[in-house]
Amino acid sequence: MYGRYIRTLAEEAKEEAKRAKQVDKLRRKEERQRAKELRAYRGRCLSRLDSLFGWFWRLIITKLGEDGIFLAVLGILVAVISFAQDYVVVQLNLARIYLYDLAYDPTSKYFAWISVPVLLVLFSSGFVHLVAPQAIGSGIPEMKTILRGVILKEYLSFRTFVAKCIGLTATLGAGMPVGKEGPLVHIASIVATLMSKLVTSLDGIYENESRKTEMLAAACAVGVSCCFGAPIGGVLFSIEVTSVFFAIRNYWRGFFSAVFGALTFRLLAYWYENHETITAIFKTNFPQELPYDPQELVIYALIGVTSGLFGAAFVFCHRKYVLFMRKSKRLNRFLQKNRFIYPFVISLAITSIYFPLGTGQFVASRLTTRQQIRTLFSNFTWGTENLTASEEMIVNEWRSDYSSIYFNLATFIVTTFFLTIAASTLPVPSGSLIPIFKMGAGYGRLVGEVVALWFPEGIRVGSYVSQILPGGYSIVGAAAFPAGVTHSISICVVISEMTGQIKHIIPVMVAVLAANVVARLLQPSLYESIIMIKKLPYLPDILPSRTQAYLVYVEDFMVRDVKYIWKGITFKELRDLLKEGAKIRAFPIVDSPNNMILLGSIQRWELLKVLDLHIGRERRLQVAAQWQEEARSSHNRRLFKGIFLSQIHILFQEAHLEFKAD
Amino acid sequence: MYGRYIRTLAEEAKEEAKRAKQVDKLRRKEERQRAKELRAYRGRCLSRLDSLFGWFWRLIITKLGEDGIFLAVLGILVAVISFAQDYVVVQLNLARIYLYDLAYDPTSKYFAWISVPVLLVLFSSGFVHLVAPQAIGSGIPEMKTILRGVILKEYLSFRTFVAKCIGLTATLGAGMPVGKEGPLVHIASIVATLMSKLVTSLDGIYENESRKTEMLAAACAVGVSCCFGAPIGGVLFSIEVTSVFFAIRNYWRGFFSAVFGALTFRLLAYWYENHETITAIFKTNFPQELPYDPQELVIYALIGVTSGLFGAAFVFCHRKYVLFMRKSKRLNRFLQKNRFIYPFVISLAITSIYFPLGTGQFVASRLTTRQQIRTLFSNFTWGTENLTASEEMIVNEWRSDYSSIYFNLATFIVTTFFLTIAASTLPVPSGSLIPIFKMGAGYGRLVGEVVALWFPEGIRVGSYVSQILPGGYSIVGAAAFPAGVTHSISICVVISEMTGQIKHIIPVMVAVLAANVVARLLQPSLYESIIMIKKLPYLPDILPSRTQAYLVYVEDFMVRDVKYIWKGITFKELRDLLKEGAKIRAFPIVDSPNNMILLGSIQRWELLKVLDLHIGRERRLQVAAQWQEEARSSHNRRLFKGIFLSQIHILFQEAHLEFKAD
Repeated sequence: MYGRYIRTLAEEAKEEAKRAKQVDKLRRKEERQRAKELRAYRGRCLSRLDSLFGWFWRLIITKLGEDGIFLAVLGILVAVISFAQDYVVVQLNLARIYLYDLAYDPTSKYFAWISVPVLLVLFSSGFVHLVAPQAIGSGIPEMKTILRGVILKEYLSFRTFVAKCIGLTATLGAGMPVGKEGPLVHIASIVATLMSKLVTSLDGIYENESRKTEMLAAACAVGVSCCFGAPIGGVLFSIEVTSVFFAIRNYWRGFFSAVFGALTFRLLAYWYENHETITAIFKTNFPQELPYDPQELVIYALIGVTSGLFGAAFVFCHRKYVLFMRKSKRLNRFLQKNRFIYPFVISLAITSIYFPLGTGQFVASRLTTRQQIRTLFSNFTWGTENLTASEEMIVNEWRSDYSSIYFNLATFIVTTFFLTIAASTLPVPSGSLIPIFKMGAGYGRLVGEVVALWFPEGIRVGSYVSQILPGGYSIVGAAAFPAGVTHSISICVVISEMTGQIKHIIPVMVAVLAANVVARLLQPSLYESIIMIKKLPYLPDILPSRTQAYLVYVEDFMVRDVKYIWKGITFKELRDLLKEGAKIRAFPIVDSPNNMILLGSIQRWELLKVLDLHIGRERRLQVAAQWQEEARSSHNRRLFKGIFLSQIHILFQEAHLEFKAD
Repeated sequence: MYGRYIRTLAEEAKEEAKRAKQVDKLRRKEERQRAKELRAYRGRCLSRLDSLFGWFWRLIITKLGEDGIFLAVLGILVAVISFAQDYVVVQLNLARIYLYDLAYDPTSKYFAWISVPVLLVLFSSGFVHLVAPQAIGSGIPEMKTILRGVILKEYLSFRTFVAKCIGLTATLGAGMPVGKEGPLVHIASIVATLMSKLVTSLDGIYENESRKTEMLAAACAVGVSCCFGAPIGGVLFSIEVTSVFFAIRNYWRGFFSAVFGALTFRLLAYWYENHETITAIFKTNFPQELPYDPQELVIYALIGVTSGLFGAAFVFCHRKYVLFMRKSKRLNRFLQKNRFIYPFVISLAITSIYFPLGTGQFVASRLTTRQQIRTLFSNFTWGTENLTASEEMIVNEWRSDYSSIYFNLATFIVTTFFLTIAASTLPVPSGSLIPIFKMGAGYGRLVGEVVALWFPEGIRVGSYVSQILPGGYSIVGAAAFPAGVTHSISICVVISEMTGQIKHIIPVMVAVLAANVVARLLQPSLYESIIMIKKLPYLPDILPSRTQAYLVYVEDFMVRDVKYIWKGITFKELRDLLKEGAKIRAFPIVDSPNNMILLGSIQRWELLKVLDLHIGRERRLQVAAQWQEEARSSHNRRLFKGIFLSQIHILFQEAHLEFKAD
């Protein structure tokens, strides 16, 4: 029975597929025939050109495979979506600044400042709630779960796609401290799934589970690629995220798709934003020579270590805040009465803190996130005296009449830290990477400025003197902090691709490694923390890379006293089994206790149902009726039967109650 | 019997391990005791400092794990080896140029030019042949095989390490067109293996197969990292090379180790070569603004496509040449008589072609490989009129009194193409990547110069005019050509890290993708081609990424009429089985034809041996002797027995002969 190959099933499936293919062929043949008939009406040259093109197309299809085209289209689509979102977000920001500038007195300025964001956040949370609540949050933790083989229902549907796209755009337009990396990964995955479905229905290829996973892994790469214009970083990210083992085929797919995505994304920027050429999104201009001195590596490593500490603190605070909000029942009851209260309070608080005439002046709130990052990466020392006019303008955004750049940078880091945590709990689509990135850039800039103040002449080595470049520190911080929070390494590559310069790759890697080591010792990554909070089904990582791990045996955690069922089991044994293994949800079925060959398993509820069918109330009544009937027919044995029946009744009842109690 | 967990074996293994650990603990305790006794003689402050340091060390050990230290040391060691090799190679090159400059007339110049290289190649081939012939060749194909689980005996021994290090240095010093990437990957793998053995013997951890594989994957990353100072490229390379599935844990290990390697490698260059700071090995200086125009992407893609074609042609020619050399038996017999003839002829031919006063002037042979690449990447157009003095000097190397730069570049590409193939068949340690890379750079420069000649004003778009940068084309070519030959994508990252600029990442990726697609359609990668030539045991890749692959069923290639043995099999069936399955080397043993549960397998020779034991000549003589004995004792049945005996004898003989015939 088992261990033998049964032909029938496989044959059936194969013939089914063949039939589908034949139908498909027939249809195609008809179409070709029709096309031929129509072609007669066209010119000779044109038809020849057409057939040449057709030949070429078929060559591409057969050689490159549909998958190649699929991946290219996926990359292009996601790039267009990402670009359109960016475009709308910029327009919304402009509208807000326009309103703010229209108002004259501080009070009306305040209302002009807060109105658009609060409305947008309320719209976003309402829209998402109505259309698809699955769109709330980042999406990376869920994608991690899905890629490890769990099916999350409704998570990759068209409704979710619409909700995520529109909700995300509104939230970003509101200027909340949220990012778009995670949501874009989610969007790309939905696009891949929907396209898969479309291709399946068009082309007659039946669905394939492994193909779907491969496409999802590629989609992850595309998401990151189109968010930052960083294809290689995207592929590395998809490797990190996917799973315990990464299929090398996906590497090529991801790369192919990510390149198309990044190319489209950058070409769109070139065409629509009047860039002079294809550029990086946060282009830096550090000098070619002497970007840093080897002695500075020690400071970079320290930035890494502290970033690791801060990163772990961020994950810790985030989890504590979420769990606190969940625990306090009274607050929850109040908030659940009206779903708009929480988003309203949080968005109002955040925008109020960012109000430029109030506390906002200490946190450079007049700048958009992109502008903040660009200025933090700028290639001059803010603390020096002789600044050009344009440089002065940048620095002025980062200092106020009452405070210096150092104070402002510090407040910027602290406020972003807490507001990011608050914003990430909003019931809207939101990522966390960009704010964390921003915070890291601010931290790096602060350290750089302090070092530049300390060594105004630069750190001296032999005859060479190299000036301190606080912008370089900013880049290192911007890479190290996300590394501490997300435990990712791909950020090294992402930041090089983002800035268009790879000069600082060694300091960046040293800091990222340090941050990673420190953060791994203290806390799980933000994604894993969210997975734990959301209690998503998830396969944990293999034990960390220490030699002690090799001393753990299967024996140490295997269940030895296995409860099993076999065809010769008695009712008593079965009853004991059900009582003893009260927490076991499924029992293995073996062929015999000697052979112990696994035949299958049975769920607890199935077993109980079957038992109920045989000795449950229904059955008992049936049996009782039968017996009664029989008893009636034979009058003389009446008394004896009655006693016997009641005995059996009691026995069955007992057994049944025992099961129910488990 | 089967299907049940047997405790005894596992328990034994565990107790063994425990015992080893206890012995180890005891030893450590004694050592600590001794150290304590000695400490009494030291000052108080020193001893406190010592204990603090000890505490810190233990913290690091327990938290970071020995593996972290192991990986860091691995990276540092390989970097030092790589740097030392580079240093010696530079000295050998200088010696050669010194000799060449000493000589006055062309004849003596010729002998000065050829003497050092030919001697070095002969030394290298002799040394490698004596010490460890496994060191011949690149090493990447073998590492691919090892990482897929095959054990290649002697391939990772200390002898091989010595032979590879010294042989490689001599070959590189001879100026042969060979690279060091592959050999360095091999060297790193040997270092990792030897270190593993050392740690195992010191620390009492028993050897673990999976740990070894993890370390080897990290070593691959380190090898590339220390060759080019490209840690991220190295990690990507290790992902591509390793296997069908990549364990994510190895990603972190590889990264950790590669960063240490690259850092050490670059720091050594900084300390010993008087660099001003840590720099990339082929640093480029392209302008920050407008490195290229989007219209040029079409040309870049064309470079990619043609590189793919050339790459496939390279793999094809390489294979044909090797197979031709192997096939011609007469030539082989002649060459095997004296092992030095082939290296002598080839190295003499190569150095003669490179003789600067002869044909060498057309292929820039006065420059070392590094200088060639640096000049090809240089940031000015060679074809223009107004060159500075230093620029003039560079261009002069690439043109002669009789030819222009275009002709020289073309000859450079063609000669490198064929000489690289010739050099790769030398019986010395040699990689192919650097010469291929060089060829690609030359090809890109040639295209760039032609385009610059065609559009002297640059390609015009709207109001912006961007000049053509032939150096950028050179970089694109240098990435695309190796991508065509090795089918790798990691070269994108390697080239960015090598040049220290990421400006051209989009053109590079477009070209690499195009080259990859074209080359994959035409030929296997060079590594796979070598694996086929060497007939290494190798698991092929999963079918290419086309939907057709999903229509292949296990049924289509599975063996259905399985030959099996079970305890109830008759002698006749067994005989038929052995006759029918004449090519089967091992037979499965099942419990019964009904259950078909696999119990194990038996090798053909084992089966024959057992049969021989029961019905072979020995046994037959034994039986015959027994029967004779018996026959002697009972005189009356003599005649009958004699007849019976001879009958049996014939029967057995027959059966036995039939087996032997298979």
